[in-house]
Amino acid sequence: MSTTTKNLVEPPPEHCPGTESESAGKSDSCKGCPNQQICASAPKGPDPDIVTIEERMALVKHKILILSGKGGVGKSTFSSQLSFAIANKSQDIQVGLLDIDICGPSIPKIMGLEGEQIHTSSQGWDPVYVEDNLAVMSVGFLLEDEDEAVIWRGPKKNGLIKQFLKDVNWGELDYLIVDTPPGTSDEHLSIVQYLKTSSLDGAVIITSPQDVALIDVRKEINFCKKVGVPIIGVVENMSGFVCPKCNKESQIFLPTSGGAEAMAKEMEVPFLGKIPIDPLIARSCDEGKSYLTTHPDSEATKQYKLIFDK
Amino acid sequence: MSTTTKNLVEPPPEHCPGTESESAGKSDSCKGCPNQQICASAPKGPDPDIVTIEERMALVKHKILILSGKGGVGKSTFSSQLSFAIANKSQDIQVGLLDIDICGPSIPKIMGLEGEQIHTSSQGWDPVYVEDNLAVMSVGFLLEDEDEAVIWRGPKKNGLIKQFLKDVNWGELDYLIVDTPPGTSDEHLSIVQYLKTSSLDGAVIITSPQDVALIDVRKEINFCKKVGVPIIGVVENMSGFVCPKCNKESQIFLPTSGGAEAMAKEMEVPFLGKIPIDPLIARSCDEGKSYLTTHPDSEATKQYKLIFDK
Repeated sequence: MSTTTKNLVEPPPEHCPGTESESAGKSDSCKGCPNQQICASAPKGPDPDIVTIEERMALVKHKILILSGKGGVGKSTFSSQLSFAIANKSQDIQVGLLDIDICGPSIPKIMGLEGEQIHTSSQGWDPVYVEDNLAVMSVGFLLEDEDEAVIWRGPKKNGLIKQFLKDVNWGELDYLIVDTPPGTSDEHLSIVQYLKTSSLDGAVIITSPQDVALIDVRKEINFCKKVGVPIIGVVENMSGFVCPKCNKESQIFLPTSGGAEAMAKEMEVPFLGKIPIDPLIARSCDEGKSYLTTHPDSEATKQYKLIFDK
Repeated sequence: MSTTTKNLVEPPPEHCPGTESESAGKSDSCKGCPNQQICASAPKGPDPDIVTIEERMALVKHKILILSGKGGVGKSTFSSQLSFAIANKSQDIQVGLLDIDICGPSIPKIMGLEGEQIHTSSQGWDPVYVEDNLAVMSVGFLLEDEDEAVIWRGPKKNGLIKQFLKDVNWGELDYLIVDTPPGTSDEHLSIVQYLKTSSLDGAVIITSPQDVALIDVRKEINFCKKVGVPIIGVVENMSGFVCPKCNKESQIFLPTSGGAEAMAKEMEVPFLGKIPIDPLIARSCDEGKSYLTTHPDSEATKQYKLIFDK
């Protein structure tokens, strides 16, 4: 006779309480975790670095996370184009773009900053500037060689994310846009934990239209609800391709069950809009340029602007 | 005066020696890791579970990892179509497909196994069977609700991956295909560590043609070289789209610097082939069907077959 593993071996996955929590190693979600013993016996209490993060973040008016469940749906593209767009609006608006994708940092390339490195002063680490009012930070700036793999387990990734918030001299910012890797794991838990007391505005969730992507987005929405991050809205990216020769629109990623708009309605979160596929978006990213500035009249630019205005 | 942070604060990222290693907490790569103290003082020595994994894996002839640096380039699609294709060749070939993407498990959906759950017997956890000769295991089968987010930090993800190798009753297999999440972090280090003594055949690396994806693939190739995983070859996915109305081919993801073929040549790794974009591939995935079986005459099927034969 067999029994279902679901009820027998594995408790329903729950939120890791975090190594600093009083319940570290002791909550239901710690069962089965190989670090349970270590967490249970480690020193507890509030993290003194949070105070330093709060001081830095008190100078930042708006903090927005860019999330998705699945990879390759255009998070970094959206983050970069949003940052370019806000900074281009006025020289008086200060924008920071923080890349917490530690193993796959594509922001330096997309922002045209390959080969740049960061400097330190008495104020901390200086971000790299695209324009006077657009500052960028990424692990990419710390690598000797851009092909180098960052082979780090969770705790080391979390340590660097903390340094990005604690040690980077962002100065006064109107917006801090945070680009994340796919998933709901270390990077996501850490950024939420470190910014919890610094008033995070919320998250924009990016997806493509097919079901396989939407499954992961539902998980991401549930992650936000569980950890208390407000959802600003959902953006459907890669939403159809218009043949440059005959103008016929093809759905490359078929919205088998209605796409992101239907999903957002069902999950009761705002839907911000759809951005069509345009090969020139990927080219702008490869070339490190603002797509909206270099292609001001395209359909995708029109849609981006409608979304950014919301 | 400012100095570069590269040399001042952050050592070049190196391979985490693993918590079981004699050098855990003591190697150069441990500097700056918040777990350094814990690792340095934790019990050391060989992991007794490795012996159990070796016994299970002794029954598996070929073990192949499917990797990519970037998300959304088609790893899970490739893993599933490869598994379907090998299993369809002959009823005598036994295939296992293991999904170690813990936060974004898409394999149950792509294999048409949504809502299935796994059972346990005295032999361990039974995988879910698509056909008599095609077995699948994924965290997706352990969730109460498919929309549930798996909010786990690294150690808990590693623990489940170990269970998938140690506790799953795969039986005798000709092929075990392992689908991975993007990146070079916990899941990748763990699977390599657990299979190190069980003769891993190597890795197939999937990418799309644009530079932003190729940067991450170079990192993945360097990861394989560092941890000693042979590279079977590189596949370029999403390699051009032929308009169904006028037959004009468009490059959706422009190969700005020559695409994966040029990169493979430069990095001295085998190039296995290019698979064009076909919206029906994504639809097959959404419907949980074998694309090669349902679309036997398409160009993508032809290219898949050429690659699988290598």
